[in-house]
Amino acid sequence: MSDLKNKILSMISEDLEEIEYALKENLNPYLDLVSQVASHILFSGGKRLRPLLMILSARICGYKGEMDKTYSTIFEYLHAATLLHDDLVDGATLRRGKPVAHSIWGNPITVLTGDFLLGRSLSISAETGLPKVIKIIAKITEDMSQGEIHQLIRMGNLDLTEDEYMEIIRRKTAVLMQGACWTGALIATASEREEKALSEYGFNLGIAFQMADDLLDYTSDTSILGKEIGTDLKEGKLTLPVIYSLKKVNSEDRIIMEKIITDKNFSFNDFKILIGVLEKCGGLEYTKRLASEHIEKAKKSILFFKPSATKDLLLNIADYALVREA
Amino acid sequence: MSDLKNKILSMISEDLEEIEYALKENLNPYLDLVSQVASHILFSGGKRLRPLLMILSARICGYKGEMDKTYSTIFEYLHAATLLHDDLVDGATLRRGKPVAHSIWGNPITVLTGDFLLGRSLSISAETGLPKVIKIIAKITEDMSQGEIHQLIRMGNLDLTEDEYMEIIRRKTAVLMQGACWTGALIATASEREEKALSEYGFNLGIAFQMADDLLDYTSDTSILGKEIGTDLKEGKLTLPVIYSLKKVNSEDRIIMEKIITDKNFSFNDFKILIGVLEKCGGLEYTKRLASEHIEKAKKSILFFKPSATKDLLLNIADYALVREA
Repeated sequence: MSDLKNKILSMISEDLEEIEYALKENLNPYLDLVSQVASHILFSGGKRLRPLLMILSARICGYKGEMDKTYSTIFEYLHAATLLHDDLVDGATLRRGKPVAHSIWGNPITVLTGDFLLGRSLSISAETGLPKVIKIIAKITEDMSQGEIHQLIRMGNLDLTEDEYMEIIRRKTAVLMQGACWTGALIATASEREEKALSEYGFNLGIAFQMADDLLDYTSDTSILGKEIGTDLKEGKLTLPVIYSLKKVNSEDRIIMEKIITDKNFSFNDFKILIGVLEKCGGLEYTKRLASEHIEKAKKSILFFKPSATKDLLLNIADYALVREA
Repeated sequence: MSDLKNKILSMISEDLEEIEYALKENLNPYLDLVSQVASHILFSGGKRLRPLLMILSARICGYKGEMDKTYSTIFEYLHAATLLHDDLVDGATLRRGKPVAHSIWGNPITVLTGDFLLGRSLSISAETGLPKVIKIIAKITEDMSQGEIHQLIRMGNLDLTEDEYMEIIRRKTAVLMQGACWTGALIATASEREEKALSEYGFNLGIAFQMADDLLDYTSDTSILGKEIGTDLKEGKLTLPVIYSLKKVNSEDRIIMEKIITDKNFSFNDFKILIGVLEKCGGLEYTKRLASEHIEKAKKSILFFKPSATKDLLLNIADYALVREA
């Protein structure tokens, strides 16, 4: 597990450095405060997965230009914008082990800095001069906000279906990773086949990534995760492990499950009991299996590319999405 | 005054109808709730000034296509998105005589619906296929959020300068009207001269429009304005009438001014006293004069267009911006 992570990190260290530089260079706010708030979320140990995906997708399609690092910031700025708004929406307190922005600067500044980051993201998209890229990014903005609203209005509802869950994670997570990979292909003026392959890779990786994320809320450790485990459930967010288990659970365990889910102040012990039920009902296992199937799809879609270090990296990243611990 | 308004309205009734239709047609949310919240702000008696400016700018440059109404929604959606976020940021209670969205649906839904409208606005920009249009819209998003933040962090500060005020209203109001007129020229593939002229027209109109708006907070009537007069000051928002007067005021009246400005719970009578001081110091007169100068600039920049009903309309709209009552 840790070996895979180290292998990936050693292969991308130069790219990561250049991404960090580009993220600093392209922010360009005229107010110090905007720079502070944006930096708080941007430089707090994010994995840079989305910009990296764009860069590697461009590279595997033979991109030879010098704008990939700049363009890759589109996806981190957009991601950061949605994190600022979503943390506020969710009433979160910690993100990557640090207090969330709205707890430091308040809602107004946080909302507006999110808007600024969205604006930056779109300005840089416009710099590509590729209408298709801009359409993708604009559509992502629509999708992510609606996915988040969908999740919000179904918060705490025990009748949330697996289909609805899939629709929500498609919009709130998968389209952004899909967009990053797709854009990489587009700036490299890739063939239609390559474009489609990378779009599918990103989409399936995104779905699996979110499922793995939802699993971590039940299987990780607060100190590793950088936020409390069980947070999703405390917020009333029902994810696949629970949705599946509620479908399979016997009537006796259902009473236990419902009691814990509807109690916003459930104890650590309650949570352990719930995890036991999820294990018994196969909710954790089912989610793992589905995530794994999407990873296989992701990998399969890029298999036709000729062997290269970049291809290995994309395959490794897909594998890592399943086994990551935070 | 009312004659001018009626004259304008009679000339644009068909355009307004088509704008309403386009605003309904292009919203396209997949969630009912998003449609409800967006409609609450979109269909609450807005003047449609920004879409109208785009349409007239395209027309005066000889636009013959059928997409102008669709593209014009960019500017109303963007405007509505910022209203949703700004009302929340300002803690406003009324907008156009109706309760603000966040007081009905709460902050989370309101923030995210704003994001959705921003996304729609950008998707429609992308449909123009004109990278320059997209750059303009993206830059507007950056500018408006920073202008709003600038205003927010200087809230209640008695040392706000006229230069800062100009910087704030440029970003939060003028660039959007500028962008609407500029985009009109661009979709009509206008000459560089026409493009520049309409961009300047929109910019100066925007500056004057905001100054007139700031004046209304001191000179209008709550029932006409659709929100309480004195609201800016209650929120700690110092606008030009006050900024100028604070520079000119004698030490005796300054004490009165500062007392009222720093008292969030000033009475209606206090407010009347303040208006008296503003009149005495020439703050209202100065703001009117400056607004009027910008209107003259706006009108001057489009004088070279050959005579037409559209040109008359643009000139009339500029005049109306100064005399409107709400």
